Amino acid sequence: MSDPSAHAADDGDLRWLEAAVDLAAQNVRAGGGPFGAIVVRNGRRVSSGQNRVTRDNDPTAHAEVEAIRAAGRALGTFDLSGTVLYSSCEPCPLCISAALWGRVERVVFAANKHDAAAAGFDDSAFYELLATDRASWSMPRVEERRTADAAEPFLLWARDEGRIRY
Amino acid sequence: MSDPSAHAADDGDLRWLEAAVDLAAQNVRAGGGPFGAIVVRNGRRVSSGQNRVTRDNDPTAHAEVEAIRAAGRALGTFDLSGTVLYSSCEPCPLCISAALWGRVERVVFAANKHDAAAAGFDDSAFYELLATDRASWSMPRVEERRTADAAEPFLLWARDEGRIRY
Repeated sequence: MSDPSAHAADDGDLRWLEAAVDLAAQNVRAGGGPFGAIVVRNGRRVSSGQNRVTRDNDPTAHAEVEAIRAAGRALGTFDLSGTVLYSSCEPCPLCISAALWGRVERVVFAANKHDAAAAGFDDSAFYELLATDRASWSMPRVEERRTADAAEPFLLWARDEGRIRY
Repeated sequence: MSDPSAHAADDGDLRWLEAAVDLAAQNVRAGGGPFGAIVVRNGRRVSSGQNRVTRDNDPTAHAEVEAIRAAGRALGTFDLSGTVLYSSCEPCPLCISAALWGRVERVVFAANKHDAAAAGFDDSAFYELLATDRASWSMPRVEERRTADAAEPFLLWARDEGRIRY
């Protein structure tokens, strides 16, 4: 017999994932990209997000980023420890990085990066690029040029007793 | 003799980097994180950004992300082709991904990831984590669970003749 508590958690995952996929489908009908996401804590919805790149002229407005930003506002903290991010699709490098910085506890997704690639989204190309040395990139070209005072902001930060770590 | 146009471009880089480092230092004095960034197109400032993670309770509000978001608003497009992103510090995986999605042409930075790590920022740990299979991560745990309608948003998207690609 399966563990009933694990079974309950499993049903919860399915419900939230279906809701995230619904958000993605609704967003396409509204003229946006095919992605939706929901942040959940203690079994309750904290926030949701839909891809707003074209509507908001914001290349960072991916569904997961939107949901994470909204979760921070809703919870009044930049630390999303204890939350679960449900996404209609496997998070791209931008979105998984947002989850890392937000200290999200779990990420669960429905469609995967191959679905995204088949629909014309660049995730696959970006994964490949990110696995190579940035100095070899042609777009963008990435260049280090150390200035005389490059470390000054970090020195100020280290000296600031009242700094809020994140 | 050096190429005068290359020399002029070089001086421009230094000026913008110093301005980005100034933004970072100002931000620490104002209680924020030690990071600043500027988006430039055709030698003119389009936008700037400072780290707002703690002020805005937004784990994605890195200086480069803020500058890229502001550039999209200022230019009225999610496509930042032809722009240069100057950052006070080497962009973390979140920020370099934002530059990729924004089609930024060049990224130039002053301090590097080792400076950031020495100041207590998690970039290095995230680089290492991102180089491993997500299925092996413990924080966040990353799980695929395909739902019956997982591909539906992409099918709707493919059928939408009026879709705005990005």
